[in-house]
Amino acid sequence: MTQTLLSNRERGTFKVLKAWRNEPFPVYGPGRTLLLSIERAGSGLFGITTHGVHMNAYIVEGGKIKYWVAQRAAHKKYYPGMLDNTVGGGLTTGEDPLKGVVREAVEEAAFPEAVVLENANPAGVITYLGIPETGLLKPDCIFVYDLLLPSDIIPTPGDQEVENFKLLDIDQMQTALAAGKFKPNCALVIIDFFIRHGILTAENEKDYIEISARLHRNPEFPTA
Amino acid sequence: MTQTLLSNRERGTFKVLKAWRNEPFPVYGPGRTLLLSIERAGSGLFGITTHGVHMNAYIVEGGKIKYWVAQRAAHKKYYPGMLDNTVGGGLTTGEDPLKGVVREAVEEAAFPEAVVLENANPAGVITYLGIPETGLLKPDCIFVYDLLLPSDIIPTPGDQEVENFKLLDIDQMQTALAAGKFKPNCALVIIDFFIRHGILTAENEKDYIEISARLHRNPEFPTA
Repeated sequence: MTQTLLSNRERGTFKVLKAWRNEPFPVYGPGRTLLLSIERAGSGLFGITTHGVHMNAYIVEGGKIKYWVAQRAAHKKYYPGMLDNTVGGGLTTGEDPLKGVVREAVEEAAFPEAVVLENANPAGVITYLGIPETGLLKPDCIFVYDLLLPSDIIPTPGDQEVENFKLLDIDQMQTALAAGKFKPNCALVIIDFFIRHGILTAENEKDYIEISARLHRNPEFPTA
Repeated sequence: MTQTLLSNRERGTFKVLKAWRNEPFPVYGPGRTLLLSIERAGSGLFGITTHGVHMNAYIVEGGKIKYWVAQRAAHKKYYPGMLDNTVGGGLTTGEDPLKGVVREAVEEAAFPEAVVLENANPAGVITYLGIPETGLLKPDCIFVYDLLLPSDIIPTPGDQEVENFKLLDIDQMQTALAAGKFKPNCALVIIDFFIRHGILTAENEKDYIEISARLHRNPEFPTA
């Protein structure tokens, strides 16, 4: 499989293969059986379900939530410069979600590992069918974590993935969401965060029930 | 409509009409339009979607969650004596979820209204197709609230609906769930609570993704 993808990469058959990552993504069959691994860049060609971990790091000041938003680096191939969750990334073969989110939190946001292990709370999983910039339909599962930060800890770019982190209040988040400044699947993670924290409610959002259901689509294809 | 139900009640055509409640339930059409109201006892005969509000009241002791479980009164028509969420009830026509949960919290658990208004957090909505004891398929939406209680507030039975309240730790909750002691739809609310609070995780539950999706079914029939 990898050999076939590599030769297609050389021939330039598929544009997505130019973004070769050297990250093996798992391909599951019925009953969550791991069938094989596939290079991340090629996974979209086969419509397989991908799995990621995203984390919402926030503080509470005067009873109000403020959220640490990441801005994606300008050189990124997909969604350069757009806003993102505090931490996010894909799960490679054999990596469990908690290990994945700790790794990403240390790499991308330079959070101390102990702070993440102590404070990160698994808060659910969102499931949806996305159409990312590649144009290839992408069934996706994102394991979601909340990280209520101790006051002395702030994120700082730990690798080349993030341009900067900004602490936004809820009004600023909503304005940025409405203006389409967030990478689309990161916006889903934030909407789920807003629902769980009582910011988006049945009283202030007429499509509340439908939004909740669509954030948790019953996957049509095998998942982890 | 009410007249037809009442005459059928007198004739004893349908057993469910014996549990007449004098509570008007809303019937919605496409686009969340309120079409009409129907007596709660008769709603199940038509398969309409019902809407409820349930609240998880809990405390945190030494970093561990303890949950205030209600035991349903022995004289209740459905699920007598079974375990229940701290507060729960149906939404009648024109009642919004927050008002409904405050009303139920005061009536059933004798919580001071101000404590509920101050501390109840809207935490999402679960959607599912239930088959309750009536045997009639019941599409249901439950608006879920979490109430982290101040240490000096405990629930006490406020009406005839609840036998008693018991403070259970997570192990005791899981044992009671596994033994089938909870009213089934209240068990769903607790599983959702366990997911949001990081008790049920991708690492300790192999069906995590499927459970999450099934707690948020895309409603087939019109809802609020």
